[in-house]
Amino acid sequence: MDVAEHALPGVHETVRFDEGVTLESGAVLPVLEVAYRTYGQLNAERTNGVLVCHALTLDQYVAEAHPATGKPGWWAGVVGPGRPVDTEKYFVICANVLGGCMGSTGPRSEKPGGAAGEVWGTAFPTVTIRDMVRAQRMLVEHLGISRLFAVIGGSMGGMQVLEWAASHPEMVFAAVPVATAAFHSAQNIAFHEVGRQAIFADPDWAGGEYWQSGKMPARGLAVARMAAHITYLSEQALTRKFGRRVRGASEIDPVTLLGDIFEVESYLRHQGSTFVNRFDANSYLTITRAMDLFDLAADHDGDLAAAFRGTKTRFCIVSFDSDWLFPTAQSRSMARALNRAGANVSFVEIKSDKGHDAFLLEEPDFFRTLSGFLSGAAERAGLS
Amino acid sequence: MDVAEHALPGVHETVRFDEGVTLESGAVLPVLEVAYRTYGQLNAERTNGVLVCHALTLDQYVAEAHPATGKPGWWAGVVGPGRPVDTEKYFVICANVLGGCMGSTGPRSEKPGGAAGEVWGTAFPTVTIRDMVRAQRMLVEHLGISRLFAVIGGSMGGMQVLEWAASHPEMVFAAVPVATAAFHSAQNIAFHEVGRQAIFADPDWAGGEYWQSGKMPARGLAVARMAAHITYLSEQALTRKFGRRVRGASEIDPVTLLGDIFEVESYLRHQGSTFVNRFDANSYLTITRAMDLFDLAADHDGDLAAAFRGTKTRFCIVSFDSDWLFPTAQSRSMARALNRAGANVSFVEIKSDKGHDAFLLEEPDFFRTLSGFLSGAAERAGLS
Repeated sequence: MDVAEHALPGVHETVRFDEGVTLESGAVLPVLEVAYRTYGQLNAERTNGVLVCHALTLDQYVAEAHPATGKPGWWAGVVGPGRPVDTEKYFVICANVLGGCMGSTGPRSEKPGGAAGEVWGTAFPTVTIRDMVRAQRMLVEHLGISRLFAVIGGSMGGMQVLEWAASHPEMVFAAVPVATAAFHSAQNIAFHEVGRQAIFADPDWAGGEYWQSGKMPARGLAVARMAAHITYLSEQALTRKFGRRVRGASEIDPVTLLGDIFEVESYLRHQGSTFVNRFDANSYLTITRAMDLFDLAADHDGDLAAAFRGTKTRFCIVSFDSDWLFPTAQSRSMARALNRAGANVSFVEIKSDKGHDAFLLEEPDFFRTLSGFLSGAAERAGLS
Repeated sequence: MDVAEHALPGVHETVRFDEGVTLESGAVLPVLEVAYRTYGQLNAERTNGVLVCHALTLDQYVAEAHPATGKPGWWAGVVGPGRPVDTEKYFVICANVLGGCMGSTGPRSEKPGGAAGEVWGTAFPTVTIRDMVRAQRMLVEHLGISRLFAVIGGSMGGMQVLEWAASHPEMVFAAVPVATAAFHSAQNIAFHEVGRQAIFADPDWAGGEYWQSGKMPARGLAVARMAAHITYLSEQALTRKFGRRVRGASEIDPVTLLGDIFEVESYLRHQGSTFVNRFDANSYLTITRAMDLFDLAADHDGDLAAAFRGTKTRFCIVSFDSDWLFPTAQSRSMARALNRAGANVSFVEIKSDKGHDAFLLEEPDFFRTLSGFLSGAAERAGLS
């Protein structure tokens, strides 16, 4: 695929921090740009801010059509007027993560001091979830907010929520980590590594310098997406949606080595091929690595409770029973650690057969849980 | 990788059927070769034959060192003198499956009527589990055996066991399908499709004509193997073996986009890169497709019990509780269908945290189950 065909739009609303930022690794980004969107109005007391944190391949377009794909906001059911995160009540902020490809500084950003048109590529420094939160904090303070009413996110977004609550408890009144974990498991790392190797194996990746050649490693990135996509769905959901339905005749073709037979194959291929139109391969490498490195307990001598000791933040942990990527057991152990830390925590497991993806879908029980928790917290925070 | 570096040995013990075979699809293989190994002695009555059926990437070297890798037989703990499948008692046969790459006719076999050195490649016809069993039956009859004491196999080998029992019940006294299912699920098909797409994406695959160029699609095949390998292990096994252990320093490197960090990554890469030395990419495509097409109930108007109605075969179904690729629920529904068919069936779920791979590992409970079942059946068969 030529870069010219690549639908990543060049223009996003951003804030530029010319002072740059020092990352957890010690590396320095001389300039930091954070692309973001806001919804609703900040109240006079600046106390109704809600930060929504996005997952691996999502972006800041949480509650409006995506400028590249035209698709509705990825959490339009959750964030909006009258929705659980009610934009008539809250001032909602969503930022593209550091390392991303929707306007925030990442591998496809221009490299400061580089040649004209030179981008970071694989020289982009290692980013951690803590670094993502650091960039978000700079944005939040830039917006004049010293304390957020809530930080909410699913999957990698949930990791950011946990990191916010652990690193900046005084800035977070309520925290909602959804379909997430306090560390990335060996199996999660393994799936990510398959995706990375698929990208590395694509000759068009060109050692990460594909922006020079004008080609995108579309096939490798598509395979990475396909492998990841399976982990987002439950076995039941795949069976319900596709089962063993075949695309064409049910007869066994004499030669079928090259073609699709089953509907689930066409679906996966479609997922892979559309993904490469909206995502950058080096960003995929950077962000998967950030998730792999996440281990909140390890940052506190192996004791997750220590990460939250004395916190005043109210937590609402949500998991989905068919999510095998971030299983309920991991949410439960988070809840236990928060209990040990003396925190105010509710934990809800939602029944759904949709797997990890459930957090992005229409799940009335989840919506009710979120609404109820936020209403109660808003009352406590004096927002009602 | 050059073909010359490829360690597939060229010489295997085979039987050649010059009459060829007509496949389920209607395609004809003008010549059929079946590579096989035997262990133990056939008794005078020719009643102690045990056919062992292998899984996707395995071969006929079930109880002896592999000629290419030098590794012990893949089921050396199960098949051998004094082992559960006792070669002092039984005459054990194991054949490379049709479509394989260890000597049986497959995509890398010479194409009859083709140019010198021309192989089937992607023109190799679609093969089904039933076709594999057909080739095995020809071998078994060639060996002078009209009834097998037992047919045993795990994973895809278990599919063959089920197909044997359904298609040739009069030839199978006892059947042991292990860690398998009567159909390939949507999730299983999806994982296979990721592997196939990874192979297709490798330019060295060259549309399947890589034998002409002298290059192997090593990177694509390695990615396919990595993705599959994760499905063979349980989340617990990965956590126990690797957890989040890092390879080098525990500090976060400033630039890590390209390297390994976690031990589980190195392990997976190793699994991928060693696999390509012993396996053919087009065989991988052919055999994964055969598994995807397997659906025994569909062959009997959707009623699995109908596949076994009136059978006199004794069944011992074995599953492992941490196997998420072929979960216990699928074995249980097989057992129920066999019950409905009035068959003699035992069903055992073995406790193990090793996932699907457990069937290939040292699992004393599995060994005891298999020994006990075979001893009892041997007594009934008058073999003791």
